[in-house]
Amino acid sequence: MNFCSDNTAGAHPKVLAALTAANGGAAMPYGNDELNRRIETRIAELFERDCAVFLVGTGTAANALSLACLTPPWGAVFCHPEAHINCDECAAPEFYSGGAKLVTVAGEDGKISAEAFAAALDAGGFGNIHHAQPAVLSLTQATEAGTTYTQREIRRLADLAHQKGLTVQVDGARFANSVAYLDCRPADITWRAGVDVVTFGGSKNGAFAAEAVVFFDRAKAAEMPFRRKRGGHLWSKMRFLAAQFEAYLDGDLWLLNARYANSMARRLGQGLAKLPGARILYPVEANEVFVELPDGVIRGLEGDGFRFYRWPDDTAATIRLVTAFNTDPQHVDALLANAERHVRRLAVSPA
Amino acid sequence: MNFCSDNTAGAHPKVLAALTAANGGAAMPYGNDELNRRIETRIAELFERDCAVFLVGTGTAANALSLACLTPPWGAVFCHPEAHINCDECAAPEFYSGGAKLVTVAGEDGKISAEAFAAALDAGGFGNIHHAQPAVLSLTQATEAGTTYTQREIRRLADLAHQKGLTVQVDGARFANSVAYLDCRPADITWRAGVDVVTFGGSKNGAFAAEAVVFFDRAKAAEMPFRRKRGGHLWSKMRFLAAQFEAYLDGDLWLLNARYANSMARRLGQGLAKLPGARILYPVEANEVFVELPDGVIRGLEGDGFRFYRWPDDTAATIRLVTAFNTDPQHVDALLANAERHVRRLAVSPA
Amino acid sequence: MNFCSDNTAGAHPKVLAALTAANGGAAMPYGNDELNRRIETRIAELFERDCAVFLVGTGTAANALSLACLTPPWGAVFCHPEAHINCDECAAPEFYSGGAKLVTVAGEDGKISAEAFAAALDAGGFGNIHHAQPAVLSLTQATEAGTTYTQREIRRLADLAHQKGLTVQVDGARFANSVAYLDCRPADITWRAGVDVVTFGGSKNGAFAAEAVVFFDRAKAAEMPFRRKRGGHLWSKMRFLAAQFEAYLDGDLWLLNARYANSMARRLGQGLAKLPGARILYPVEANEVFVELPDGVIRGLEGDGFRFYRWPDDTAATIRLVTAFNTDPQHVDALLANAERHVRRLAVSPA
Amino acid sequence: MNFCSDNTAGAHPKVLAALTAANGGAAMPYGNDELNRRIETRIAELFERDCAVFLVGTGTAANALSLACLTPPWGAVFCHPEAHINCDECAAPEFYSGGAKLVTVAGEDGKISAEAFAAALDAGGFGNIHHAQPAVLSLTQATEAGTTYTQREIRRLADLAHQKGLTVQVDGARFANSVAYLDCRPADITWRAGVDVVTFGGSKNGAFAAEAVVFFDRAKAAEMPFRRKRGGHLWSKMRFLAAQFEAYLDGDLWLLNARYANSMARRLGQGLAKLPGARILYPVEANEVFVELPDGVIRGLEGDGFRFYRWPDDTAATIRLVTAFNTDPQHVDALLANAERHVRRLAVSPA
Repeated sequence: MNFCSDNTAGAHPKVLAALTAANGGAAMPYGNDELNRRIETRIAELFERDCAVFLVGTGTAANALSLACLTPPWGAVFCHPEAHINCDECAAPEFYSGGAKLVTVAGEDGKISAEAFAAALDAGGFGNIHHAQPAVLSLTQATEAGTTYTQREIRRLADLAHQKGLTVQVDGARFANSVAYLDCRPADITWRAGVDVVTFGGSKNGAFAAEAVVFFDRAKAAEMPFRRKRGGHLWSKMRFLAAQFEAYLDGDLWLLNARYANSMARRLGQGLAKLPGARILYPVEANEVFVELPDGVIRGLEGDGFRFYRWPDDTAATIRLVTAFNTDPQHVDALLANAERHVRRLAVSPA
Repeated sequence: MNFCSDNTAGAHPKVLAALTAANGGAAMPYGNDELNRRIETRIAELFERDCAVFLVGTGTAANALSLACLTPPWGAVFCHPEAHINCDECAAPEFYSGGAKLVTVAGEDGKISAEAFAAALDAGGFGNIHHAQPAVLSLTQATEAGTTYTQREIRRLADLAHQKGLTVQVDGARFANSVAYLDCRPADITWRAGVDVVTFGGSKNGAFAAEAVVFFDRAKAAEMPFRRKRGGHLWSKMRFLAAQFEAYLDGDLWLLNARYANSMARRLGQGLAKLPGARILYPVEANEVFVELPDGVIRGLEGDGFRFYRWPDDTAATIRLVTAFNTDPQHVDALLANAERHVRRLAVSPA
Repeated sequence: MNFCSDNTAGAHPKVLAALTAANGGAAMPYGNDELNRRIETRIAELFERDCAVFLVGTGTAANALSLACLTPPWGAVFCHPEAHINCDECAAPEFYSGGAKLVTVAGEDGKISAEAFAAALDAGGFGNIHHAQPAVLSLTQATEAGTTYTQREIRRLADLAHQKGLTVQVDGARFANSVAYLDCRPADITWRAGVDVVTFGGSKNGAFAAEAVVFFDRAKAAEMPFRRKRGGHLWSKMRFLAAQFEAYLDGDLWLLNARYANSMARRLGQGLAKLPGARILYPVEANEVFVELPDGVIRGLEGDGFRFYRWPDDTAATIRLVTAFNTDPQHVDALLANAERHVRRLAVSPA
Repeated sequence: MNFCSDNTAGAHPKVLAALTAANGGAAMPYGNDELNRRIETRIAELFERDCAVFLVGTGTAANALSLACLTPPWGAVFCHPEAHINCDECAAPEFYSGGAKLVTVAGEDGKISAEAFAAALDAGGFGNIHHAQPAVLSLTQATEAGTTYTQREIRRLADLAHQKGLTVQVDGARFANSVAYLDCRPADITWRAGVDVVTFGGSKNGAFAAEAVVFFDRAKAAEMPFRRKRGGHLWSKMRFLAAQFEAYLDGDLWLLNARYANSMARRLGQGLAKLPGARILYPVEANEVFVELPDGVIRGLEGDGFRFYRWPDDTAATIRLVTAFNTDPQHVDALLANAERHVRRLAVSPA
């Protein structure tokens, strides 16, 4: 009963089946195969627009490579303090970009505040050689708080960015969960809202290692083939990356998976919200729940064998619960039941 | 009938089966799972020595990451002019190392000459701040010419390197093919011969994307966890990297595959050697054959639908034929038969 | 009447004279000359301790090179949000370090707060490969607010840093001004307080282009000769760097210059403090005064031909006044008199 | 009597005088002063063409910064094996470019052979993501062998480069010596011959630390202001860089100095050529003489107190003699006389 991360889930059976299907016969290496030729068209159809697509195996690669295409080494990349690129990638964006600077812009519920971003741009030092030059706005969608930027929120931030010549990148490791939550089209919260590049994640949502970096402006992608190769992210047998993604697109598996994961998170969130002493920290929109609980309840659940992380660290009174495409509803219900039991127990004999 | 590369082959069925087997239930991400804990022990057993093991998805990543651990940014890495790290990785070692310099040392049959290496060390400028500082000797095993360094050859080069304080890294994308050819133990041509680090390749030999970087000295591996993460090469679902490798080790699949591929190359080489006008360029030891042929024969084979590369480029009179774990013997025989037919045809009416 | 920066001052005549004196006869290049051999001893005497010394031409080089020796590319460097390395060096530390991350830690009067630093260390993610690894604490002395860390303040911060294995670097572009203010020995606020490396600035205080990077632990300096050369900061005629520094040390010119500059700032600060409507933002300890003034007064002074920067940008109601070793006291008094005149004028007919 | 390098000479008295002249009064920092505004025009006049000019303190900085503006991190820079950028800058170009690759192209007398360069371009792998992408041709003028490319030679190489989309950079640390030798205009062997960027050296020819990077196409210089600042090569008191260069240009000091240095080298070369057993290795065109001499003669001269380097290392039978703007003719004559004496002595009693 593991709620640590959507990364603890394996791959979807259809993705694995696609690998087997892709395994027959010879195929030219490094992406010069039929499957890879096809995948760009498929993704363009999904996004309703011509785009340049680059598959890679990890979210960190997808973010760092795309950012490196969008910023000079002396550029500034604006992101939320909690952004994965800022906290969880061991300075990969700095490495790939040759030393660009991540500048954090705060905001509630894991989202960059437009006011704070406007202020950061005002202090941007454009053209001043002593300052890192504002180059990219990076949004995390869904956010690290399990929330989702609306089209309107993105549009406002993107307009601010574009007025000053910045490009807008979206870390979409959980992009599917946002589309599922908003019940919108992928285009609505990307290029139609001003997004220039999105990393469309598969690994957390049914693939075993596959992310698609999608550039809506091919000119911005000019360096990407070299950067991907040079970063060691061009697989020799690229067909196995494309095969994962094709299965992920077929029959909207990406969307069904995300909808399911979101529903499990919602179920968790609604159940926990009813518990006395529990406080849900952020609106539960994607597939994550952050909940503050009495320490005795947390320890009780840990003792019952539930696995999750305290957040932001081991001493916290908040836990993060993440659901996935294959979360067992019985695990969800068991967690809720046990939590309630611990709450009651503690009410009788407080720790 | 594709002889372009061992990368055109798919994955071995046992490797795919292992993915499915690994897919049951939750597993902690980023390598903190059962399979990953096991794989280091398995590889240590294979190499008959304690070692630090890091799995990654591509050969370029394996090389660039390991070299970056062994050289400062101002270091010199000695390699053969034809080495993959020098010619085929889009300057990945320079990128990962922060700007180290590859210094080429020539030699016949794709192998670095000990005399040339000794001379390069003499000109090394040790301690001279104006010069890149000699740091690593990188050997390709099997070489890009399809040959294999013997234990004695490695020992001699490694001794020269160690006397001057350099470390010895082996690009072992086709390491299995060398072990198979020499009929030796992996240890014999690695640490017993003075090798400090080897990248033990799986992707060209039955895995779909898996290489193991093996450090025989754990102290040299201290930076590797950070470099791998920061390079975006730590998969979130690392179990799928480990599962490939476990299947690759089980029942010596790696060795059986390599032996088979070598045998197909030998069959090709022996057949081609008998053709009038054909000249085999290098001893056929691993799974590659380089053969000079009359242009009419090459064009004839191309017309018959055989696929291979002219070498080193499209204007050459030499072709490279690569075999794999699943090369069809009938394809080999067909190529030999057709080549002979073209030779005869041309003898009657020369182009 | 220029109060923009201590950089607008030229060089001290004694420094220029030293260049001429150093110009006779041949001298071996790249620091292998008599003057350079001597300078390390001289600086060791000043700091009362053996140290490794590296001269360079700019403060940015001094900071970026020294930090690069102290952090891995995936390291975190803690600094004040206003630190020169964070705001005014176009991401030079990120460049030289190969992508390390500057993490800002706030505090009043331009100084890092010990509480905030302790909290940052608690959230440091030591050993966690997903996080940049805490590596260096960088203090600016004197600070960008014109204040000075006391020995006690440094000691407390350094102890926190050392307990967690970080090293302590001081950006000492205005180090002389702090020594002058505290009336202490250079050792008191460096190694005696826990500082591992200090950049001892000359360029803002009488040299024309000379900074000394001083490592109190020679082992930490091992990479510096290569990094300096590779960064293009080893002059071929290094005698002209050493000559500047020797003149700067002779007769304590560095200290006399700093004392004088501080005294001029104090005179400015005391005068301005008396003006109705003026607010001095930070204690005036080194050679900078930050003062909030009615806009009419600022515009009046600008109209009178005084030059200075509004701070932090052109729209601010605060101005920064910087004094130097050669600030003309009549300019100081003129500014005070004119400011008073403008205050009076505005009191009669407010803008 | 030091013939080790033109770097052992000090600065020309007129350059030092210019520093003093520049020292009066306040000047805005970082190049925003009168002298710096003037210098670009002066250099444009000298080169008879509009150009973007960037002053820095060292030749390594001038080369590495300009190359970094002309190549992507995955680019290839073609240069002679003996080029300073390849041998003597501790991999600075690799550092500044973010990991570009220097590819050596041989040729006699220190010059790249057009045939070899054409062959290198043929093997360039343009557009092939596995290869570093050909980006820059770097010529050393005067060469490390003391020779000079003619306009015709440059034109031929530049045409080859431009046909393939490469840019042409000249390492002109001794550019003045080539102009003096050819008795041409600076434009003749730069933009009129196809050169896109030249580093116009001052440090080896009378300045104490000053080089001008000259871009004939302003668009190619767009990144340079940021790269210079970020590399720590923008002096705060830039007036002292400009002042050196102005004095260097005034009255054609640069040319007079170079002519003189060349004449001293010629005198050395002509004298040495007459000695039995001496062999001049390369045409003496600039200010360097490479001469093979009997070991006894070399040791004799060393014993007499003459200083020079054996070339390429301490075991060689060749010595390199470098002259400068202030080489004493009596030292030249003394060296010739002593060499002759040693030759005679050895003829009587051979070592």
